[in-house]
Amino acid sequence: MTAAYDRLKARFARIALLGQAQSMLHWDAAAVMPAGGAEARGEQLAVLSGLSHELLTAPQVAEDLASAEAHGAWDDANLTLMRDAHARAVALPTALVEATARANSACEQRWRTARANADFAMVAPALKEVVRLQRETAAALSAATGLSPYDALMEGYQRGITAADVEPIFAAYETFLADALPRAEALQMQRPRPVPLPGPFPIAAQQALCRDMAERVGLDFTHARLDESTHPFCGGTPTDVRITTRYNDASVAQALLGVLHETGHALYERGLPSAFAHQPVGEAAGMAAHESQSLIIEMQACRSDAFLRFIGPQLHAAFGGDAAPYAPDNLAGLWRRVERGFIRVDADEMTYPAHVILRFRLERALIGGELDVEGLPAAWNEGFASLLGMTPPDDARGCLQDIHWHDGAFGYFPSYTLGAMAAAQLMRAARADLPELDTRLSGGDFTPLREWLRAKVHGQGSRLGFQDLLRAATGKPLDPSDFTAHLRDRYLVA
Amino acid sequence: MTAAYDRLKARFARIALLGQAQSMLHWDAAAVMPAGGAEARGEQLAVLSGLSHELLTAPQVAEDLASAEAHGAWDDANLTLMRDAHARAVALPTALVEATARANSACEQRWRTARANADFAMVAPALKEVVRLQRETAAALSAATGLSPYDALMEGYQRGITAADVEPIFAAYETFLADALPRAEALQMQRPRPVPLPGPFPIAAQQALCRDMAERVGLDFTHARLDESTHPFCGGTPTDVRITTRYNDASVAQALLGVLHETGHALYERGLPSAFAHQPVGEAAGMAAHESQSLIIEMQACRSDAFLRFIGPQLHAAFGGDAAPYAPDNLAGLWRRVERGFIRVDADEMTYPAHVILRFRLERALIGGELDVEGLPAAWNEGFASLLGMTPPDDARGCLQDIHWHDGAFGYFPSYTLGAMAAAQLMRAARADLPELDTRLSGGDFTPLREWLRAKVHGQGSRLGFQDLLRAATGKPLDPSDFTAHLRDRYLVA
Repeated sequence: MTAAYDRLKARFARIALLGQAQSMLHWDAAAVMPAGGAEARGEQLAVLSGLSHELLTAPQVAEDLASAEAHGAWDDANLTLMRDAHARAVALPTALVEATARANSACEQRWRTARANADFAMVAPALKEVVRLQRETAAALSAATGLSPYDALMEGYQRGITAADVEPIFAAYETFLADALPRAEALQMQRPRPVPLPGPFPIAAQQALCRDMAERVGLDFTHARLDESTHPFCGGTPTDVRITTRYNDASVAQALLGVLHETGHALYERGLPSAFAHQPVGEAAGMAAHESQSLIIEMQACRSDAFLRFIGPQLHAAFGGDAAPYAPDNLAGLWRRVERGFIRVDADEMTYPAHVILRFRLERALIGGELDVEGLPAAWNEGFASLLGMTPPDDARGCLQDIHWHDGAFGYFPSYTLGAMAAAQLMRAARADLPELDTRLSGGDFTPLREWLRAKVHGQGSRLGFQDLLRAATGKPLDPSDFTAHLRDRYLVA
Repeated sequence: MTAAYDRLKARFARIALLGQAQSMLHWDAAAVMPAGGAEARGEQLAVLSGLSHELLTAPQVAEDLASAEAHGAWDDANLTLMRDAHARAVALPTALVEATARANSACEQRWRTARANADFAMVAPALKEVVRLQRETAAALSAATGLSPYDALMEGYQRGITAADVEPIFAAYETFLADALPRAEALQMQRPRPVPLPGPFPIAAQQALCRDMAERVGLDFTHARLDESTHPFCGGTPTDVRITTRYNDASVAQALLGVLHETGHALYERGLPSAFAHQPVGEAAGMAAHESQSLIIEMQACRSDAFLRFIGPQLHAAFGGDAAPYAPDNLAGLWRRVERGFIRVDADEMTYPAHVILRFRLERALIGGELDVEGLPAAWNEGFASLLGMTPPDDARGCLQDIHWHDGAFGYFPSYTLGAMAAAQLMRAARADLPELDTRLSGGDFTPLREWLRAKVHGQGSRLGFQDLLRAATGKPLDPSDFTAHLRDRYLVA
């Protein structure tokens, strides 16, 4: 029934546009809303979520899905995504959804104080309730999807890859790291310590530079904004994408590399297939796919030797002072430095996966019931020591550091490292397809890379799951050896 | 049935919160959205409107309204407002609502070009369709409400006053103006011409001054923002109110008086009864009531002798130069000047009502069928000449100047002058209640006026219609003699 499919398309377009409204209200809350608007904003967003859920779970949807027929690869995939979204939505009783929202919100608030006080006991009861409800959610989604409970949660963030795929990849990385990290540290010690860039960096000049670089990477400001927020992010919609950063006049790297990262996310949104705008298949393929796009810009392209040759003189022109610190080698020393640390968000690209591997193992155990909330701090510290050889001095630098679990996000963490690995794999494939890629980057020209990503990733929307997307773009599913090869080239060459 | 009323309250809260989301998206579109976001924004807003209409017209609403019981004056009024909103919504067939949205949008776009070219023929067919649909809408609302067709439209902007109330008030004003305007002009001619304030006025200094003055009037920026937009407005929500202005470094009056005007609107929203937040009775009482609050701040308080004594030194401190132009008498000469002109939005407070009277008469005739679109330019020019003694040189300075009709807004225009008259009446009552009012204004202290307005107007929400609101606040329904007395004091005293 084409009519049934057409009705579904109209309904999912409404749901997508409701989602766009929510996205804009989230951006507003983070970037411009006065503090006094927070309470009403929460209520506005709750109403939009509720209406969206009602649209997705209305009896008419099940009827239409039962008879709908779609023709062609894109519409087929679209219909499959509709079925999956509906199955996941109806699998969860309203009472569970509401209890989860309440528990997440209560725990997240509690967590802010607990982290500030490095006091895990303070948040433990609330987190226990969050985990209990996540286990229930995982079980319900598992029953509806046939996936394992943890995979069913992970699918909510990234389709097309399972914990069974991830586990051996992460185990291999752990082995690689045990060997590579001490070698990288030793090599780094042998080199002269890089000279810090001479500050201060006036905020207005940073803003102008960041905007200019975002445009150079390919962001068109008739369809985008760049603002400030405490936690940088990329939000908005494909035709009105909103990125944020934060400025600090003592450092330009934070804002600039942050903007380049968010620009990678933004280009993905801008490049989604407009023929399927507002349809599930027209959306980004998932969080790991999204992270691959921010990291291919920030880590692969913008910290490459080629781009450092371009950005150095740009920085010197913007901020003046002695030219020597802006030399590519010195910038490489500053921006490509391995350093063991307790905090994930401050980690370099080599140690970052260790932070993710730890969280992946712990959250799987929490959802699977092999670990309880009480045991989390000890398990964290033990796992951290095993991966990075140091023990967190307190839980604020341990299991309290991230908001994710305390806000009910389980199954998300692997996306960071899957994205980093995919970025390396995509970059290698792009370099093979585009021999001029680095020459162009050294002139500040992102056109070939951007067009390649648009064709291979952005323009594919959600037609393919993670592994299939990589297969189509690079000829193989996720292959972590491209990432380790990248790290070897960057950190293990004397 | 209290349960039925409770269900209705929950439903109307969802509708109000959807309205708040729409309001924020409108603000975003006007103040910060990149141009490329416009198309998707239109679709987002259409979805929210559609969902809101569905919530309001669902069969459950009629059932609940049939059995609902409310107790107490506020809840009684709330239930009445729910009944009215529902009756108006179900009176209009979906096909009519959709045709109206399309026709309004098409006409408004056409109008932009027509106005730029001063070519009425270019927009006439589109406007004809808009008028045809407005007549149909008015007839349907009339049948549902028992009001006359024009009154039924007017009620959509301001409850509690009818064309039969307005007509004699406007006729009397026409008579007043025929005598007063030439006398005011003659007196003005006898005085020395005021000295312009010495510019330029740096934008950053204007922004700081405007923000400072808005705070002084009573706007709390933990619950508000001040931004820029092409057409200044007040939007947002009661706990997050967003006002805009536009800056021009050749003039400070435009931005400053504009901000004071919008601050009046903003204080109304901020002062609405929070116990009835998200309920119909907790909203502002209508567009004329709203305009009374912007004008009591801008026209009554901020152009008063008392406040000019305060603002002069503030302006001088902000922009420097010769002090003489900042003297209260000179500011009065600049900011309280009558001048016949063709353009409503540029009009002074004495001639402004003439612009509104003309539009009120013409739109009533258009809706009533006594006037057709073809006859509009001639009727406009004839009416304008009769009221202000001049004939517009072209339709861009005549019937093409306002967006309202071309966007389907009929019945709105009277609100401007009803608001101006109500502002004078409220100010007179406030002065009687608060003998210290002008002394306090001359020190830049708005507290007594603001508290009085909060008690008499803001805090009353929509409990009372326009005439009853004035009756409760001032002891009488709209009495235009307070407005003409104000004009005599300000413009007809030698």
